[in-house]
Amino acid sequence: MPEFSKGLEGVVAAETQMSYIDGQQGVLEYVGIAIGDLARSSTFEETVYLLWNKRLPTQAELDAFTKGLRSHYDPPAGVLEMVKGLPRDAQPMHALRTLVSALALFDPNPNANDVASAREKALRILAATPAIVAAFDRHRRGEAFVPPDHDLGFSENFLYMLNGTRPTAAMARAFDICMITHADHGLNNSTFTARVVISTLSDLYSAMTAAIGSLRGPLHGGANEEVMVMLNEIKSVADAEAYVMNKLKNKERIMGFGHRVYKAKDPRASELQTLARQLAHDTGNMGFYEKSNAIEQVMHREVASKGIYPNVDFYSATTYHCIGLKLDLFTPMFALSRLAGWSGHVIEQLEDNRLFRPTTNYVGPHKVAYTPIEKR
Amino acid sequence: MPEFSKGLEGVVAAETQMSYIDGQQGVLEYVGIAIGDLARSSTFEETVYLLWNKRLPTQAELDAFTKGLRSHYDPPAGVLEMVKGLPRDAQPMHALRTLVSALALFDPNPNANDVASAREKALRILAATPAIVAAFDRHRRGEAFVPPDHDLGFSENFLYMLNGTRPTAAMARAFDICMITHADHGLNNSTFTARVVISTLSDLYSAMTAAIGSLRGPLHGGANEEVMVMLNEIKSVADAEAYVMNKLKNKERIMGFGHRVYKAKDPRASELQTLARQLAHDTGNMGFYEKSNAIEQVMHREVASKGIYPNVDFYSATTYHCIGLKLDLFTPMFALSRLAGWSGHVIEQLEDNRLFRPTTNYVGPHKVAYTPIEKR
Repeated sequence: MPEFSKGLEGVVAAETQMSYIDGQQGVLEYVGIAIGDLARSSTFEETVYLLWNKRLPTQAELDAFTKGLRSHYDPPAGVLEMVKGLPRDAQPMHALRTLVSALALFDPNPNANDVASAREKALRILAATPAIVAAFDRHRRGEAFVPPDHDLGFSENFLYMLNGTRPTAAMARAFDICMITHADHGLNNSTFTARVVISTLSDLYSAMTAAIGSLRGPLHGGANEEVMVMLNEIKSVADAEAYVMNKLKNKERIMGFGHRVYKAKDPRASELQTLARQLAHDTGNMGFYEKSNAIEQVMHREVASKGIYPNVDFYSATTYHCIGLKLDLFTPMFALSRLAGWSGHVIEQLEDNRLFRPTTNYVGPHKVAYTPIEKR
Repeated sequence: MPEFSKGLEGVVAAETQMSYIDGQQGVLEYVGIAIGDLARSSTFEETVYLLWNKRLPTQAELDAFTKGLRSHYDPPAGVLEMVKGLPRDAQPMHALRTLVSALALFDPNPNANDVASAREKALRILAATPAIVAAFDRHRRGEAFVPPDHDLGFSENFLYMLNGTRPTAAMARAFDICMITHADHGLNNSTFTARVVISTLSDLYSAMTAAIGSLRGPLHGGANEEVMVMLNEIKSVADAEAYVMNKLKNKERIMGFGHRVYKAKDPRASELQTLARQLAHDTGNMGFYEKSNAIEQVMHREVASKGIYPNVDFYSATTYHCIGLKLDLFTPMFALSRLAGWSGHVIEQLEDNRLFRPTTNYVGPHKVAYTPIEKR
């Protein structure tokens, strides 16, 4: 009987040229470039180009890519009509999953999955999803949709459509860095889901929809919302130590710490911490930042020796809070960014596809007779 | 570096008490009971009970289960409203994925995933999905929806809602046997997808939506539609041999033959063949059945020695054709049935969960400098 590694831990399930992760050293590279360099110097658009093409673009290539992306900022009118019919109390991740799925209904050729078509559809889905998230949030607030501004970059345009006003340059840049740092991360559950689904030669919509459903889970993308819940439970910096110690004593989980892959500080957490501190300062949220920092210090003292460090969710919560995002939009933000990684992995899978079809250990009975119901 | 088995072939990814498959001997059992016994003696409702409870029900248990299922035949009104807004030329699998996803928007507590809640949601999704499929098909034909008849069983009620008239007993029974034989089959791609998604502690809607997206692919559920396309291409029994020989000569695939798991005749194919022959006789489609049979005979002569035999899709195409189902409803029929297996696996996963988080072989460059754009 083959060996069974629960959760496929340590099992290689794909090859990739995108993310390299060294969990022991706390290293993350996209196509060989350190995540810190990209966070400090790149843009989300350039990072997506890098992930999808395995190299940085020239200025002309980046201009063409950006132009293509901006030309697809508007979702099909039918999808926006559908938004207006959704219950206002629906949760944004369920709405997002449904609406990205619905994009297929307005594509005259939704199943095309040769690599060129897959790239084109990936671009269109990535481009249109910010407007879908913003439209649903405005719908539930009873506000009119704000059409995209095609002169704005991905991040700035999203915040503009969401709020109806242009964000400050610092806020747009902070949001863009969140998009860069969340764009790809190996075979995390949602990315694996996307590869498994596309391996039936299904389609981009099916793969992205499935990945959104995976990301919703609290053991994955949903974790950043739970960090925020925790931060709201801790009333002040002074309360942080007692809160953490009490949780540890009761063997409860501290959200935003620990990772299957990283046994050192997640390099994305380091980048986001720098960002969160600056943004908290700029937006009058230093108390909130200091609360996060106090938790990290207690956790460092208590559990760093066990390899438990802050993960990407920990400081992204503070960052999103300072940007003014509602709690239940945190995971949709993760989805906006990770669409880049999901699509890149789908393209890699299509370039060298083999159907995912693992096997089970059957642990039930054998050769059971069918007993007629009157004899049971 | 850990070994890489492409497509996770031969890798055990879960334990199950539902399906046992012996691909060499052509055996399929649900909880130990041979699929042939269930096809001949059971009903879909009883089979679902078996899969979800790991034993056959008593009469009282089956009555209670059936009553519960029938009480949820009606989808939320909001979902039926949504159907009316969908483009009429949308493909049914894309519509189905979108509408099952939308069920979550009308559930006041969509994320509950303790095992009891998961069972309840699985029942509701399974009960409501036939009406969703029927409603979309009637919408695209411009016909009014037919509300469910709560006195009818799952299969009979579906055909009634689809056609507006009650099917013959033989047709309802044939359809029910299709539902029984497609209900579960180990870690096929869509079932694996459902388990991967729920392992983030996501929710039933996310898992079922993801699985539908996987099933759509032509390497998985979409194959039964492709068998039908082939059967339509072959004009008569006399043409079958030349058609098959020509395909084999050009090394093209004959749809409905061969399976990753079975190296003998799929026992479901045997059951469905018996069914298809009887139904073809009853409905004046013997020519169509004989065409299928002629293909099987040529294939047996040519490639049985390589372990290539008819799979479940081969005779289900003939069966669905005799029932009068449109080609693009074949895969949705597969989904109706497989919802049982997907849900059962999700329940098993939740009972002993571990996040699926495999790893990759990184095959790209390392330590690449970020070159400023003006220097590229």
